[in-house]
Amino acid sequence: MIPTERQAAAGDSGPERSLRVGVLTGGGDAPGLNAAICGLGRRLLPLGHRLFGFRHGWQGLIEDDAWEIEPREFSDLIARGGTILGAGSANPYNQPERDVPRVLETIQRRRLDAVVAIGGDGTLGAAQRLADEHGVSIVGVPKTIDNDLCGTDFTFGFFTAVERVTRCIDDLRTTAKAHDRVMVVECMGRHAGWITAYAGVAAAAEAILVPERPVELRELFGRLQVLRDAGHKSAVLAVAEGARLYRDGVLLSTTQTDRYGQFLTGGVARMVASEVQREVGWEARAVELGHLQRAGRPLAMDRIFALRLGAHAATLLLEGRFGRMAAMQNGEIADVPLAEAVARIRKLSDHFLDRYEAFFAFPNP
Amino acid sequence: MIPTERQAAAGDSGPERSLRVGVLTGGGDAPGLNAAICGLGRRLLPLGHRLFGFRHGWQGLIEDDAWEIEPREFSDLIARGGTILGAGSANPYNQPERDVPRVLETIQRRRLDAVVAIGGDGTLGAAQRLADEHGVSIVGVPKTIDNDLCGTDFTFGFFTAVERVTRCIDDLRTTAKAHDRVMVVECMGRHAGWITAYAGVAAAAEAILVPERPVELRELFGRLQVLRDAGHKSAVLAVAEGARLYRDGVLLSTTQTDRYGQFLTGGVARMVASEVQREVGWEARAVELGHLQRAGRPLAMDRIFALRLGAHAATLLLEGRFGRMAAMQNGEIADVPLAEAVARIRKLSDHFLDRYEAFFAFPNP
Amino acid sequence: MIPTERQAAAGDSGPERSLRVGVLTGGGDAPGLNAAICGLGRRLLPLGHRLFGFRHGWQGLIEDDAWEIEPREFSDLIARGGTILGAGSANPYNQPERDVPRVLETIQRRRLDAVVAIGGDGTLGAAQRLADEHGVSIVGVPKTIDNDLCGTDFTFGFFTAVERVTRCIDDLRTTAKAHDRVMVVECMGRHAGWITAYAGVAAAAEAILVPERPVELRELFGRLQVLRDAGHKSAVLAVAEGARLYRDGVLLSTTQTDRYGQFLTGGVARMVASEVQREVGWEARAVELGHLQRAGRPLAMDRIFALRLGAHAATLLLEGRFGRMAAMQNGEIADVPLAEAVARIRKLSDHFLDRYEAFFAFPNP
Amino acid sequence: MIPTERQAAAGDSGPERSLRVGVLTGGGDAPGLNAAICGLGRRLLPLGHRLFGFRHGWQGLIEDDAWEIEPREFSDLIARGGTILGAGSANPYNQPERDVPRVLETIQRRRLDAVVAIGGDGTLGAAQRLADEHGVSIVGVPKTIDNDLCGTDFTFGFFTAVERVTRCIDDLRTTAKAHDRVMVVECMGRHAGWITAYAGVAAAAEAILVPERPVELRELFGRLQVLRDAGHKSAVLAVAEGARLYRDGVLLSTTQTDRYGQFLTGGVARMVASEVQREVGWEARAVELGHLQRAGRPLAMDRIFALRLGAHAATLLLEGRFGRMAAMQNGEIADVPLAEAVARIRKLSDHFLDRYEAFFAFPNP
Repeated sequence: MIPTERQAAAGDSGPERSLRVGVLTGGGDAPGLNAAICGLGRRLLPLGHRLFGFRHGWQGLIEDDAWEIEPREFSDLIARGGTILGAGSANPYNQPERDVPRVLETIQRRRLDAVVAIGGDGTLGAAQRLADEHGVSIVGVPKTIDNDLCGTDFTFGFFTAVERVTRCIDDLRTTAKAHDRVMVVECMGRHAGWITAYAGVAAAAEAILVPERPVELRELFGRLQVLRDAGHKSAVLAVAEGARLYRDGVLLSTTQTDRYGQFLTGGVARMVASEVQREVGWEARAVELGHLQRAGRPLAMDRIFALRLGAHAATLLLEGRFGRMAAMQNGEIADVPLAEAVARIRKLSDHFLDRYEAFFAFPNP
Repeated sequence: MIPTERQAAAGDSGPERSLRVGVLTGGGDAPGLNAAICGLGRRLLPLGHRLFGFRHGWQGLIEDDAWEIEPREFSDLIARGGTILGAGSANPYNQPERDVPRVLETIQRRRLDAVVAIGGDGTLGAAQRLADEHGVSIVGVPKTIDNDLCGTDFTFGFFTAVERVTRCIDDLRTTAKAHDRVMVVECMGRHAGWITAYAGVAAAAEAILVPERPVELRELFGRLQVLRDAGHKSAVLAVAEGARLYRDGVLLSTTQTDRYGQFLTGGVARMVASEVQREVGWEARAVELGHLQRAGRPLAMDRIFALRLGAHAATLLLEGRFGRMAAMQNGEIADVPLAEAVARIRKLSDHFLDRYEAFFAFPNP
Repeated sequence: MIPTERQAAAGDSGPERSLRVGVLTGGGDAPGLNAAICGLGRRLLPLGHRLFGFRHGWQGLIEDDAWEIEPREFSDLIARGGTILGAGSANPYNQPERDVPRVLETIQRRRLDAVVAIGGDGTLGAAQRLADEHGVSIVGVPKTIDNDLCGTDFTFGFFTAVERVTRCIDDLRTTAKAHDRVMVVECMGRHAGWITAYAGVAAAAEAILVPERPVELRELFGRLQVLRDAGHKSAVLAVAEGARLYRDGVLLSTTQTDRYGQFLTGGVARMVASEVQREVGWEARAVELGHLQRAGRPLAMDRIFALRLGAHAATLLLEGRFGRMAAMQNGEIADVPLAEAVARIRKLSDHFLDRYEAFFAFPNP
Repeated sequence: MIPTERQAAAGDSGPERSLRVGVLTGGGDAPGLNAAICGLGRRLLPLGHRLFGFRHGWQGLIEDDAWEIEPREFSDLIARGGTILGAGSANPYNQPERDVPRVLETIQRRRLDAVVAIGGDGTLGAAQRLADEHGVSIVGVPKTIDNDLCGTDFTFGFFTAVERVTRCIDDLRTTAKAHDRVMVVECMGRHAGWITAYAGVAAAAEAILVPERPVELRELFGRLQVLRDAGHKSAVLAVAEGARLYRDGVLLSTTQTDRYGQFLTGGVARMVASEVQREVGWEARAVELGHLQRAGRPLAMDRIFALRLGAHAATLLLEGRFGRMAAMQNGEIADVPLAEAVARIRKLSDHFLDRYEAFFAFPNP
C-alpha cells in the first residue's frame, strides 16, 4: 500500500533547522503549476520546513506580497488548473535599480533560506542573475506550455495543450466534412512549433505549418491540390501562430493589429485560409484556439510530471544544490544549471521534422 | 424490453405503395443533423418506403446529386456530428429561372413523392415557395444552432453549442484567475443571443452581452468597476458576435474585414477586451470560439430531439400533411405551417432578459 | 445587456420584513443541486432576505446543523457538482416522536419563516407531512436523477446522467467492435427506465431493457440472433438496474448480495451477459456505471433548469404559496401541490415505449 | 512545413523488391492500436511495400483471415479507438500440433516476408517461439494497457487509461463530498499497480492499494482514522483489481464468482468498501471502472507514441532486424530482443513506491 504513515519521517529526529522557502510562478499560466507547488510542499512541509507563496511571479517579491501555505491547501491542489500563486510577467531586471533591492529586502525581511522560481526563460533568467549577482539561493522549475525551453525534454502543460488541440481538430473534422471545407487551426507557438506538430500528427492534420520550416505558399497550394486530386473533400491544417509564410520567396507579415493597436492573433490562420480559398478555390475557414489551450485542469501526465519536478526542486534545495533547475532528461527526472535553460529557445529538431515529413507526404487517395 | 421485433409492423400488410422520399440538409451544419436523418429513415424504411439523400442542401436537387440511403447506414449514425448529406447554402431562388426548373426536373426524374428539407430560414423559405408556387410535397425540419427560428421552442444543436461554450467558460476561469484578468468570450449569434445567454447563465458569466439589448459601454465599465470594488479579481464576459456596442450613444462598428476583405469574426470580443483594458484598467483578453461551437458529436438531448423531429417529419409525410414543419411546442413534438417558421427571427424575450437581469445584478462581494 | 445593475431592485423600498429561509437537500446527490440553491439565493438575498443552509437533508433540521449562506458563496456555485449543503436520507418520520419535535424546535429557534426542501419522494413526503400536520411553511423542489417523480416533466441531474451514459456507450463501442463482443451496460433506475431508455436511444443501443417492460430472455436471445444473422458482429445493450428478467415465464432474482450482505449492483448486467454468452454463444461483458452517473459537474441545461426551479421556489415562498413544489410542465416552469409529487413513481409511458419499439425493431442488416 | 511531398522517397529508385508484410493485434484491445498500425503502414506503403491485416490476433494467421490494407484506410485511423484488425487471445501454441503448421502455411501461401505482431506477453511469446523454432521473420510491438511489460519504459494505451481513471476520480469527489463518504475505485491491474498508482497520485487519492504492496487492512483502517481525526469528511481510495488484502496476516480471497461461475471483478473494491464501512464506521461505496478504462479514443500522447513504435517496427523490418521489439527506453524509441519483453511482468519499483509513500503519508489536516 502506498500511502501509509511515513515511518521513515516519523523515525527522523526532524530537520536540524526549519527552512523558510519562498515560491513563485512567473510568466503565463500553464496546466500543472499547482501540481508543481504541490510536489514542492508535500516534500518540504512534512519535514518541518515552511513554504511562503509569493503572488504573481517576481511581483510578489518586489512588493513582499505573500502568505504561508498551509498543509490543508494541498488537499486536491494537484488536480486544479491555473496557479494559486497567480501568474505574472513582472521582472526585477526591468527596473533593476529600483526592484532588485526590493527583492533582496523581501528575502531578508522574510528570512528566506531559498527561493523556488517556477517559470520560463524570463522568470528563470531573473532567477539566474539574482543567484549570480547577489548570491540568492535559488532553484528553478521549468514552465512553458510551448515546450521550447532548453535543458529539459519536456515542460508540463505541454501535454495538456496538445490534447486540447488534438480534440479540437478531431471535432472540427465533422464540420469540415459537412461543408467540404479546409479548416485552418491556429495553435500556440511563436518561436517553436511543438504544440502544432504534436497535435497535428496526433489528429492526422493534412498539413502542419511550424516556425522551424518556412512555408512557401505555392508549395502548400500544390500539396492541397494533390489531396483534392486524390479525392479528398475536406482537410484540416494545423498552423503555429509563429509560422512564417512566403509568397514567391517574400516573407508575409502575419502580425495584424486591430484599431486599438492590440496584437491580433489569428493572423496566420486567417491569412492561410484566405489564400487557400482564393488560390486553390477550396472553401476555407480559420479557427484560433487561443487561451483555450492553457485553460482548465491539467492532464494526469502533466500533473504527475509537474509534481515530480516540484518534488525534485525540494530535493535540490534540501541538498543545497542551488542555481540548478529540475528537468526531465532521457525520460527521467534530473537537473541542469539554470544557465542552460535560459540559453536559447529549443526548436523542433530537423530529425523530427524529417521523420514526419516522410509520414505526411503520403497522400491518402 | 423496448427493441423487440416490431410486431405491429410485421402485422401490417405493408404500405399500399412504396413512397420515394428525398431528404436534404441545408445551411450550416449543426450537431443532430444525422440524428434527424436517422429519425426519418428509421420510420420510413421499415415500412417499405425508400429514402434518397441529396448532397449539400438544395444543390443536390439542382444538380440531381443523390444516393439511396441503405438501412445499414443508420447503424450508429445518430451519434455522429456533421451530416452525411453534406451541408450547403445553395438556394434555387438565387437564380430561380435556371434552378427552380432543375429542382422540379430532379423531383420528376427521381419520381419523388415528397421532399424533407432540414434547414434554417433560407432552406425552409425555398421549401415553402416550392410548395406554394409549384405544389411540391414538402415537409420541413427546423435547423439552426442559433435557436432563433420561429414556430419551435428550440432547435437541435443549440443544446450542444451551449454545452461547449459553458465548458469553455468553466475552463477559461482558471487562466482568468491566474492572471487577475477579464476574459471576453465571443459566442455565435448574429441576430439573437440564445447561445450567449444560456451559456453565460450556466457558467455564471459576470456579464452577458446579446444583440437584443444594446450595450452602452460606460454602463458595462460601471458594472465591472462595481465588481472590482466588491473584490472580484477576475471575470468572464459572454458576448454574442452580434452584440451592439454604443459609446456615448453612438453605435460602434464591430464588423472588421481583414486585408483580403474576409469578414473578421472576433471583432466584438476584441473590441470589448480593448475597451475594458483601456477604460477600466483591468487586463482583458478575447477568445473567439467560432466553429468549435458546432463541431463534434451532438449531446444526447440533441440526438433524441433531432431523432424525434425527423420521425415526426416522416409521420407528417405519411399522413400527407405537407407544407408543415416538425417542431417542439410546449415541450412536446408538434408541427406548424412552414410559413410560420420563416416569418422572422426569434429573439430572446424581454421576460427572459428581465428575469436574468435580476439574477445577475447581484454582485458577489 | 443582461447583467447590469438591477435598477428595479434599487427602486424597491425593500421588503417589509426580512424573511429567514431554511434550505436543505435530501436523498442522494444529483448534478444541479448547487444550481438550485443558487437560484433560490440569487432571488432572495438581493431583496434583503436571509438564507440558512441545513446540512445533510432533514438531519440538519433534526440536529440544528446550519449556517447562514453569504452572497459570495454563490460566485461560481452554479457550475459545481454535488451539494454544498451535503445530501442525506435522514427523515424525521422514521422516528417521529423523537425527531418531528426537534425539527419544529429548530424552525422556532432559528425563527425560520419558511423551509425549502429540495429532494425526492422521501424528502418531499416528510415536507408534506410537516406542512399538513404542523403547518410548517414549506416549498419543495423536485430532485431525483432517475427522473421518476410525478408532477414534473423532468428533474435536474437527469440530463447529465443521460449524457454520461451516452458517452460511455459511445466509447464502449470501440472495445465491443475490437472483440466482436456484446457489452451490457447497467444504468441507474430501480423502478423506472428513464436514464436507460434515453441513453440507449441516443447511443443507438441494440437493445434496451427497462423495468416497465418485463424481459423474456428467449425473446432477447432471438433478437440478438437476428442481429447476428444480419451481420452484426458487436452490440451494446443498455440495461436498467431494475430490469425484470424472465426465463420461460419465471422471474429471475437479480439482486445479489455479497459475503457482507451488501447489495450487489451489477447483478442485472452480469446476469444478462452470462446468459447471452451461454445461450447465444456471443462473447459478452458487463459494465456497471454506478456512481459515475451522478458524479462531476452538471450539464449546462441541468444548471439552468435547476436554477430556474430554485428561483421559482423563491417566488412561491415570497408569494406565500406554501405546500407547493416548483416543477416543469409542458416545457415551462410551473408549480404543483407537494402531494402530487409524492403520490407515485412516474414510469416511462406506453406511448414512449411503443414509439421506440418501432424504431428499434429495425435491424440494421 | 512538415508534410510536403516526400522528395527523398520520390528520389528513391524504389525498393528492390516489394515486401509483403502481415500485421496482427493480439490480446485485449488498448487505445493506440490503430495508431501503431498507422505508423507501420505509413512507413511501408509509400516505399511500395504491401501490408496485410490479419483479423483477431493469431487467429487470423491460423485461419488465413486477412485483407490487404489500402492507403486510404489510414486517413484518420490514428485518432480512432479499438483496432481495425480486431483483437483476440488466440495462440497457436495452445494446440501447437494443429495450429503452428497452419500459421506457417498461411505465411507461405500469402508469401509474407515478415510478420509484425502487436501484443502483450502472450502474443509476443508465440511470436518469439515462431521466430526461434521456425525461423519466421517477426518484429514485435509491445501492447498492454497495464504497462507491465518488460523491455519498454511504457506501453501505449496506459496514458489513456490513467487519464480516464483520473477524471473519474476527479468527478467522484463531488458525490463523495456530498455524502461524507469514502469512494473505493477499482482500477485495472491484476499483477501490477501502474494504472492505479499513476491515477491515484494524479487525482490525489487518499490511499492507493496496489499488488506490489500487500495491504494489512488494520493499517488501512488506521490511516483512514488519522484522516478523519484530521477533519477529512470524504476520501477516495484507488484500488488495483489485483491488490492483496490481509486481515491479521491472513490473505483474503477477493476473487468472487457469480452464479454462472463468471469471474466477478469488483471483488476488491466491494470488499474494501464493506470492510471500511463496518470497521471504521465511515460510509463507503465501490465503483468499478472496468472496460471504460480501455474504451474510446486514445490520448494524443498515446497516438504519437504508438505511431512511433509502429514506424520503428517498419524500420526494424526494412533493416532485417527480426526477433526484436520496438520499445521506449529512456524516453527514446529503441528496440530490444523479443525474449526480453516476455521474460516477466514489470512491476512498480520499490523506488517509485517509496517516493510516493513519503508523499502520501502527509495527512492534510
